[in-house]
Amino acid sequence: MKAVSERKQQITSTAERLFNQKGYLATSVRDLAEALGIEAASLYSHVQSKEELLWSIADRCADEFFDAVRPIAESNLHTQQKLTEMIVAHVMVITRNQDASAVFFREWKHLSEPQKSQYAQRQSDYEGIFKAVIRKGMEENLFKNFDEGFSARTILSAINWTHTWYRPDGEWTARQVGEHLSGFLLNGLIRTI
Amino acid sequence: MKAVSERKQQITSTAERLFNQKGYLATSVRDLAEALGIEAASLYSHVQSKEELLWSIADRCADEFFDAVRPIAESNLHTQQKLTEMIVAHVMVITRNQDASAVFFREWKHLSEPQKSQYAQRQSDYEGIFKAVIRKGMEENLFKNFDEGFSARTILSAINWTHTWYRPDGEWTARQVGEHLSGFLLNGLIRTI
Repeated sequence: MKAVSERKQQITSTAERLFNQKGYLATSVRDLAEALGIEAASLYSHVQSKEELLWSIADRCADEFFDAVRPIAESNLHTQQKLTEMIVAHVMVITRNQDASAVFFREWKHLSEPQKSQYAQRQSDYEGIFKAVIRKGMEENLFKNFDEGFSARTILSAINWTHTWYRPDGEWTARQVGEHLSGFLLNGLIRTI
Repeated sequence: MKAVSERKQQITSTAERLFNQKGYLATSVRDLAEALGIEAASLYSHVQSKEELLWSIADRCADEFFDAVRPIAESNLHTQQKLTEMIVAHVMVITRNQDASAVFFREWKHLSEPQKSQYAQRQSDYEGIFKAVIRKGMEENLFKNFDEGFSARTILSAINWTHTWYRPDGEWTARQVGEHLSGFLLNGLIRTI
């Protein structure tokens, strides 16, 4: 069974790369099979459809974001430190999964219903974790009174973009990128008077 | 000739919408013709290829960004005010061109050479306008000593994302969105001690 699971993993990572580079709609099962050096028929013995792959990539990536960020949000850290660590953790998920996170951010909209709505709900729940911590910081008079949805979206937008420019061989480690980003963003959010 | 030019405009805005919704690669000339309610052959009497459309959309959108932002960067405004107005102007270009700016941000990578490299250069020149103003603000001891490329990219990332969530019928005008974003981002950038 190990070989089967390895092949499945290979199919998934190839799909992540092609869905990111070409887009989900423009990637055919034939493209996937060619990139894997196998027959399309053989591919279908591992996955039922292209959409099953899109779902499994997006769903696994969502799991990684929740698993990395939720324990920090639920911890006893000071609110500012908490938001910093959530940003760092989020960036580290992206840098570990650059192709998959591109699919997570952009390609999920091509899912069919009901998956598409379930997925939008998960994204909204995830944003909600950030909103709750930001709201807490506002209540503690630590963060400025920006709308919490606006603040969460601005932070996530600034940090999500790392999937387009982060290079593992670049000057900064993933943690350093996250710390720089949180330094930049949080000092815009923390009350200075 | 007026009718021809109107039809060209109609083709362009339909292409912007489809390239944004489905992605450039997944949009066929047949899709475009169908959305326009004309024959593909008739479409070819107005445009030579799908790529010509991609280029003209991306190029016009780049022109709009430069035309809106460069005069502010070259003005005598105080550096902080300058960066604020550049952010507002950038957001207003996006909100006026939500489909085209999505193409500008995401789909240009499907251009062929030499257009692709020319285009990457224009994007880099545009980022350079922001970097120069940020550098000036650092020299004036107004902005923190973050790397200017990192700062420019963080600001542009946070504000570019508006193309995915801005709604013309939403609570805020485009200018208000820009002002909120610059308020959020600049107060993270301005030295507080």
